[in-house]
Amino acid sequence: MIAEADPAAGAGCPCCLPRRSFLRGLAGASAVAARPAAAAAGPSADRPRGTGLVIDCHGHYTTEPPAMLAWRKRQIDAINDPAQSPAPSDLTVSDDEVRASVSARQLKLQAERGISLALFSPRAGGMGHHLGNARTSLDWSIVSNDMIHRVASLMPRNFVGVCQLPQTPGVSPRNCTAELERCVTQLGFVGCNVNPDPSGGFWTDPPLSDRHWYPLWEKMVELDVPGMIHVSASANRNFHATGAHYLNGDTTAFMQFVTSDLFKDFPTLRLILPHGGGAVPYHWGRYRGLAQDLKRPPLSELMRNVYFDTCVYHQAGIDLLLKVVPADNVLFASEMVGAVNGIDPETGHAYDDTKRYIEAAAISDEDRAKLYAGTARRVYPRLAAHLSAAGLMP
Amino acid sequence: MIAEADPAAGAGCPCCLPRRSFLRGLAGASAVAARPAAAAAGPSADRPRGTGLVIDCHGHYTTEPPAMLAWRKRQIDAINDPAQSPAPSDLTVSDDEVRASVSARQLKLQAERGISLALFSPRAGGMGHHLGNARTSLDWSIVSNDMIHRVASLMPRNFVGVCQLPQTPGVSPRNCTAELERCVTQLGFVGCNVNPDPSGGFWTDPPLSDRHWYPLWEKMVELDVPGMIHVSASANRNFHATGAHYLNGDTTAFMQFVTSDLFKDFPTLRLILPHGGGAVPYHWGRYRGLAQDLKRPPLSELMRNVYFDTCVYHQAGIDLLLKVVPADNVLFASEMVGAVNGIDPETGHAYDDTKRYIEAAAISDEDRAKLYAGTARRVYPRLAAHLSAAGLMP
Repeated sequence: MIAEADPAAGAGCPCCLPRRSFLRGLAGASAVAARPAAAAAGPSADRPRGTGLVIDCHGHYTTEPPAMLAWRKRQIDAINDPAQSPAPSDLTVSDDEVRASVSARQLKLQAERGISLALFSPRAGGMGHHLGNARTSLDWSIVSNDMIHRVASLMPRNFVGVCQLPQTPGVSPRNCTAELERCVTQLGFVGCNVNPDPSGGFWTDPPLSDRHWYPLWEKMVELDVPGMIHVSASANRNFHATGAHYLNGDTTAFMQFVTSDLFKDFPTLRLILPHGGGAVPYHWGRYRGLAQDLKRPPLSELMRNVYFDTCVYHQAGIDLLLKVVPADNVLFASEMVGAVNGIDPETGHAYDDTKRYIEAAAISDEDRAKLYAGTARRVYPRLAAHLSAAGLMP
Repeated sequence: MIAEADPAAGAGCPCCLPRRSFLRGLAGASAVAARPAAAAAGPSADRPRGTGLVIDCHGHYTTEPPAMLAWRKRQIDAINDPAQSPAPSDLTVSDDEVRASVSARQLKLQAERGISLALFSPRAGGMGHHLGNARTSLDWSIVSNDMIHRVASLMPRNFVGVCQLPQTPGVSPRNCTAELERCVTQLGFVGCNVNPDPSGGFWTDPPLSDRHWYPLWEKMVELDVPGMIHVSASANRNFHATGAHYLNGDTTAFMQFVTSDLFKDFPTLRLILPHGGGAVPYHWGRYRGLAQDLKRPPLSELMRNVYFDTCVYHQAGIDLLLKVVPADNVLFASEMVGAVNGIDPETGHAYDDTKRYIEAAAISDEDRAKLYAGTARRVYPRLAAHLSAAGLMP
């Protein structure tokens, strides 16, 4: 599984950001980290019409301090010589460096776009569960989650933590429960990312409905935290990470839910499909028809447990999503800064400024409020304590 | 690769039709085949408003005569004992059986829906390229293509052939060129289906842009026939065939096109993405942005070579497709009878009656005519001779 990856770069395709940005970070030449934390104030004052709290449920730490990326590089370089592997405690990053790492991009864009705070998790493509072994994955998860905790602790009005899990192909997800519990009960995290394909594009582990995954679902239910189903890098050259593997992961997971009794066994489990649910809303008729053909319950029953984010980067796509999926099942998100960084020449605005599409969508103010905060607060019940402690809600 | 498949049933998930229908066919108890060929007349008289020729570019032979399925079962049973394998010439099916096999479903639905004729290929899920070896695949392709030829020869006003290729994982697609040439030059076929993942869900072969595939592209260009990029059954239990593997295949292929110079090397190659292009139109903004980020040409350049069908089973999905993809790149199709067989309780009509969605879409009559026939005639130039010989066009 490791054979096709490029350890020097972290993985075959290791990033939400384009590869060049990831490598630039590894080289320690991050322009972001050099800028002052000028925009690190609280929520923006110029929030657009009719919105209160705006929660971005899908943000990744794609602007990591160079020292963090260097730690990972050392770890990967030592995969075949574990004695050389760094310990999580070897990483040293100052508070100023942590603040600086998010000030030029995430904080600036939050303020400009009127986003209150982001549910913030480690870079998805950087999780690289296919690299090394269970120990590699655990150490890297601890380092990554601790860094998220520092971001959220230093800027609680802008960020709240969502953790990476120490998954490894062929290893029971039971070994993720301790790190999940640490993040939730000790670090104040409100959810986790679950990689449905820890092999990195070879899909060698069982489907999410298999009992293989049950220890993780049990712990998530016990802690009352949801999971975002999010693959990591692709080590399979057939799959471009952000252009194929990510969307395929979402689509695949949904059909696993349609064809299984997972939510009969875990009626309170809540899972979020990112990237607008991959192909699912576009093929909503196909899925309704397949459920019917296969004598499965109607999709409406899945809506007790399955949620979609709004990481869809054009108006027509968002309009479709909001037409077929109830607002009670849609969470505002922008994957910012992440998969797509440019300015859309057709609109003059950033592709990932998803709030603009939602503002322009033909939905009620009530539904818009659900997308921005109501649904997220319901799906992530532990968010309430964070919002209250950060002074964002009474 | 064979390990996870079920040879008794043909494959892990061997069908466009639900598994029960496939097995019913294998058991020889096909209600379809028992019915008279009453509806085998020419094109329907009650064609809806404003349409002339209506070409369905995506039809599979999912109602095969029981003898054909029995032949395949014998072949699979003999995979480990090739001496017992049947020869293609062992299959005996009468003309009446061939007519009967399509009269109760395809011909009836063509007449009811006002579809002139279908580009007809072997059952996609039944191709099962991952089963056996190159010889298995070649013999089964010959049997399958010969049966398509008989359907098209007996009912040329309703069907024209598109062939299955004798692909095998790890084997050069060069070995498909002879069968392609036979089908096109001797049997009058107008196109082929190309499986981007002959491994059946493990994606072990190179991407479509790799030189591995070039001998096939060269032959397609030489013969001036397009290919529909269509996976077969999934032998990977993570992927439901029609609910995940099919859509993932479409999405994956598109991103391979975005990131490669395939069409620089083959400027006249034409490839069709079925199932409305998987996740692609829904994520059109993401793909535009990724192309921009990756310094690739804009998607408009791909539109010289890439086409999408209309196998999207609800109005909102079709509306999105027609909003983002130019009519010059969309081909009418219904995948009939195929992936989704039921009646949509929300509309009272069949999910796969895609013509209704197109009739209701806010597009010009000129664009509608392109979808129904104009684009298909351009993409499949060999169709002209067939339409003329069948008396469907001057």
